[in-house]
Amino acid sequence: MTNDSLLNKINSPADLKEMSDAELDKLSEEIREVIVDVVSENGGHLASNLGVVELTVALHSVFDLPYDKIVWDVGHQCYAHKILTGRRTRIDTIRTEDGLSGFPKRSESKYDSFNTGHSSTSISAAYGIACSEITKKEGAYTVAVIGDGALTGGLAYEGLNNAGRSGKNLIVILNDNKMSISNNVGSMARYLSRMRIKPSYLHVKTRMNRLQKIPLIGKPMTRGLKRFRDWLRNEFFGQKNNIFEQFGFDYFGPYDGHNITQLRSALKAAKRKHSPVLIHIRTKKGKGYELAEKNPKDFHGVPSFDIDTGEPKSSSKGYSDVFGEYLCTWASKDKRLCAITAAMSIGTGLSNFSKKYKDRFYDVGIAEEHAVTFASGLAAGGDIPVFAVYSTFLQRSYDQILHDAALQKLHIVLAIDRAGIVGEDGETHQGIYDVAFLNTMPNITVYSPSCFKELEMFLHKAIYNTDGVAAVRYPRGGELYIPEDYTITNKPYVLYGDESADILMITYGREFSQCCMAMEILDSEGIRVNILKLNTIKPIPAGAVMSAKKYKSCYFFEEGARSGGTGESFGFELYQSGFSGKYNLSAINKPVVQAKTNSSLHKLGLDSEMIANKIRNDIAAGKRKERIVSSGIKSR
Amino acid sequence: MTNDSLLNKINSPADLKEMSDAELDKLSEEIREVIVDVVSENGGHLASNLGVVELTVALHSVFDLPYDKIVWDVGHQCYAHKILTGRRTRIDTIRTEDGLSGFPKRSESKYDSFNTGHSSTSISAAYGIACSEITKKEGAYTVAVIGDGALTGGLAYEGLNNAGRSGKNLIVILNDNKMSISNNVGSMARYLSRMRIKPSYLHVKTRMNRLQKIPLIGKPMTRGLKRFRDWLRNEFFGQKNNIFEQFGFDYFGPYDGHNITQLRSALKAAKRKHSPVLIHIRTKKGKGYELAEKNPKDFHGVPSFDIDTGEPKSSSKGYSDVFGEYLCTWASKDKRLCAITAAMSIGTGLSNFSKKYKDRFYDVGIAEEHAVTFASGLAAGGDIPVFAVYSTFLQRSYDQILHDAALQKLHIVLAIDRAGIVGEDGETHQGIYDVAFLNTMPNITVYSPSCFKELEMFLHKAIYNTDGVAAVRYPRGGELYIPEDYTITNKPYVLYGDESADILMITYGREFSQCCMAMEILDSEGIRVNILKLNTIKPIPAGAVMSAKKYKSCYFFEEGARSGGTGESFGFELYQSGFSGKYNLSAINKPVVQAKTNSSLHKLGLDSEMIANKIRNDIAAGKRKERIVSSGIKSR
Repeated sequence: MTNDSLLNKINSPADLKEMSDAELDKLSEEIREVIVDVVSENGGHLASNLGVVELTVALHSVFDLPYDKIVWDVGHQCYAHKILTGRRTRIDTIRTEDGLSGFPKRSESKYDSFNTGHSSTSISAAYGIACSEITKKEGAYTVAVIGDGALTGGLAYEGLNNAGRSGKNLIVILNDNKMSISNNVGSMARYLSRMRIKPSYLHVKTRMNRLQKIPLIGKPMTRGLKRFRDWLRNEFFGQKNNIFEQFGFDYFGPYDGHNITQLRSALKAAKRKHSPVLIHIRTKKGKGYELAEKNPKDFHGVPSFDIDTGEPKSSSKGYSDVFGEYLCTWASKDKRLCAITAAMSIGTGLSNFSKKYKDRFYDVGIAEEHAVTFASGLAAGGDIPVFAVYSTFLQRSYDQILHDAALQKLHIVLAIDRAGIVGEDGETHQGIYDVAFLNTMPNITVYSPSCFKELEMFLHKAIYNTDGVAAVRYPRGGELYIPEDYTITNKPYVLYGDESADILMITYGREFSQCCMAMEILDSEGIRVNILKLNTIKPIPAGAVMSAKKYKSCYFFEEGARSGGTGESFGFELYQSGFSGKYNLSAINKPVVQAKTNSSLHKLGLDSEMIANKIRNDIAAGKRKERIVSSGIKSR
Repeated sequence: MTNDSLLNKINSPADLKEMSDAELDKLSEEIREVIVDVVSENGGHLASNLGVVELTVALHSVFDLPYDKIVWDVGHQCYAHKILTGRRTRIDTIRTEDGLSGFPKRSESKYDSFNTGHSSTSISAAYGIACSEITKKEGAYTVAVIGDGALTGGLAYEGLNNAGRSGKNLIVILNDNKMSISNNVGSMARYLSRMRIKPSYLHVKTRMNRLQKIPLIGKPMTRGLKRFRDWLRNEFFGQKNNIFEQFGFDYFGPYDGHNITQLRSALKAAKRKHSPVLIHIRTKKGKGYELAEKNPKDFHGVPSFDIDTGEPKSSSKGYSDVFGEYLCTWASKDKRLCAITAAMSIGTGLSNFSKKYKDRFYDVGIAEEHAVTFASGLAAGGDIPVFAVYSTFLQRSYDQILHDAALQKLHIVLAIDRAGIVGEDGETHQGIYDVAFLNTMPNITVYSPSCFKELEMFLHKAIYNTDGVAAVRYPRGGELYIPEDYTITNKPYVLYGDESADILMITYGREFSQCCMAMEILDSEGIRVNILKLNTIKPIPAGAVMSAKKYKSCYFFEEGARSGGTGESFGFELYQSGFSGKYNLSAINKPVVQAKTNSSLHKLGLDSEMIANKIRNDIAAGKRKERIVSSGIKSR
């Protein structure tokens, strides 16, 4: 940053108010540099952040935060906002442990008015804020910034449908970059692309708004012009009402989202409306960084270049890739097999499938509910649909899984990617709830492989050998450690280790690797343990509970929510079977904040070191207790 | 039914094919009579069923089921369909135990192609069926019948957005009766009402479709006419594309949904399209039954007139009414208090609130996701939003509760009505999952009152004395038995009964009454028990677990899902505390089919009789075992 840096002079958004449009342009360039620097170091959502720099600058120059509010849909585009709202000096800590979040966080700043992470929430949330007693009374403005991708989600539609005619100070910015995460799908996308080519006939509107302020003659003249505009619109643009106007919004746009002068003028016009306005802007994902402009998909979420990623020692291949390969193989022999993604074809490993089996591949947009109900329809028609989805986004389909698939015993397959701790995206994206919420439903089987080979076996079992809803869950990244002498099998559970031990570790999925490593640590210290690895985690295999019964101490290690999770159910069943030993459950009992995965696992007591510590310490404590008892002093 | 009854001649839908429009009209009248008879006897969704009689007759006369498929959105309008598809003689068993379901059920008939119950699923499901390998190959048609109310749900929008340009044989019938369950809300409703007043300019379309079939001259003439139509449309109706056409559907309508000739002609035209068509029909809810036509809201879901309703001995007031009264009282003193419903203002007891506090009452349509995210926005703005919702529909907001409210610790209140068994609506509507799925989330407190006074206390606590998400759950209907000597308190748990007993019943909510009655039965036989009543069920009060520890036998009775429920968690915590007695959990471990509530409770072992039986039998078995052991024969 040079000496004449404008950014260095910004201590709060108020400092933007005095700047000229040219200065705001220069400021945007400076912010853009900071973002590229930070993301190349820490990883993050590069393309989306570069796309909204001018918008963010324009917003802060026109609105008064924190008095006015901005809700950032998804929230991964908030870096410029953070830089301008007192967090510039800490921006290099973004997405690191104890650092700034990559998403808006109310707990982080008074300038963040609503936490986001999942898509399509901003209109509903902003409308809520706009309706609240205080906001109404103070006449403050609430702005929702939402991408065209997020508009494919039904929640955004529900928001539009409710907010449109509310008369509230609500401004929705449609940040139209022609793609969600992959390319945009569905009719809304086509509709927007048609709108884009209609240059701003609605500039007329802005001009009229200015006109309206002229005393006495302003209003009558506006009325005349409005009639003229309507005539013009009908005559030349053939659209009485565009879709947003039909929802009750005033529609301004489309504007060039990188032109600060245009943006500021539109925002000011919207402020004068005092009723819901939708401003349609066109932006370029990755704007200003050539590589990202050319390949925005590759630069949507990028990992840091740091070698020590905190991810499990991954092979070059990840679970997602392996999943995609198997599915392609089987699809070549089985026409019934089809694949569904909710705007995550690359992330879930379905790129090849999407090319090879175009007519059986469905990218439904960011519409996880539709994905499951649609899959249920496919299944009712005799197909075998596989919905590949990140654990955290599957949460959106709870009722569809239960009501549309499970209750009517339709055979759909859920390929649950990013199961478990996910790292830097933090608490809104952790895949730690799927096991617990699927546990509450009938007619569901959940498999939890611990390596690629098991993924193949259990995915095959889920597709071809399971009734009702079949889920296979696997983590982000690649394979972790599997001992050489471990025999991979497709049985519901496996015992591995020292059968004569009186200590049993119970676990599933990726955590099996941590338990194996812990066993080796303990073994080197002369402590013998056995491991019960669950491959099927719902229903809990009755034989597994019976096997655990004979041990003096059972330790369940679960990389998932404790409340309602498998560890709790297993423990309950074990006790019910008459188990009289000690049962110790290590699982996740609070939201997991951003950190590298290994660090989170360590803090949660779920990495090999902490597992070994726990068992070692318990043995030592037990021995102390024994000594005390045998020396005649009553414990307790 | 007279001798010249047409209905008696219908053995399968194929028999409709030969009938004239006049005969189909007469048939409709006969069906209407049957429906009024049946619903007055069994209860059910009268108004919606009367509204679609002609549509159903027209559909079956034009399409070939089960080769073609119909998906009925919500499904409560399927009575005429059932009457015409081989279930006429059993129609009087509808909504009764072991009788026909009030909703479509694949297990019931090959003519039912998809189970429904919750709203807005039909387009996604029908599109899935239309895409499936077999349906595609056979060239079959898939029809979704969806009401205008269901269109307020985001899932329907996701379905439209995905299906629109698919080129599949998909026909969506928009059954527009100008209301969902209460009056329709939101912009879509206003939009439809504008469309309604535009008489069918699209009749032209139908005519053109006929024209197209004329060899040689048909096609060129059609092209010319299309241009004419577009000109006409622009010139006189000012709409280049209506919202459904923007989604890629051909739009036909609006038509009179009670005119069989019009309906059949539109359906036939749609068949010829071989691509997605939306047919907009206007119907009258309650058509043909004067009382229902005048008050369709009152006749949406009606109870049978049978005095022995199977519902718990209810006072004239229900929990919903009481809830509404309290909320009104507190709202008069607190402007921050606002109420949200998802198209259920009457069902949830919010009618008075909606009139008294118009500016703080939000009917969001059938949009439970928006409801929760919107509530979170209100909370972020400082308001105290109360979302009153049936347990079964809250399932739709799983991610919004977790991601938008709980993770950011926003204080919203969930008033969960119809918690527990609900009776005749059957498995799609049971309120038995909320406890289990809320258990999986952090920052949530769940209260479970057992009488009106407790509802007041815990609702007040939820609103004014609880951080984060606060849920209060209460059953359908009214108060059940509360013993006179029971002291109502707002403590997290209460012990009631014989403190010296070594048997403890643990329970919460409505089930407390069953336990009290069981205790009295047992007491009369000289068997002493104590009851632990949980008022706060999440988090489980630590003191409650400690209190239970001293008992020899604990019995948990839960009117909710076993897997992930409170009984399982309580048992786990109890065992972990060192409890060495017997723990017996009676909860619900499979979907609960339609039956009167008392009958379901009895079959599930959850009514007072079965509870008493269980404990009595266990004691007897224990005594036998003791005798055997004491006589020297080893048990097992």
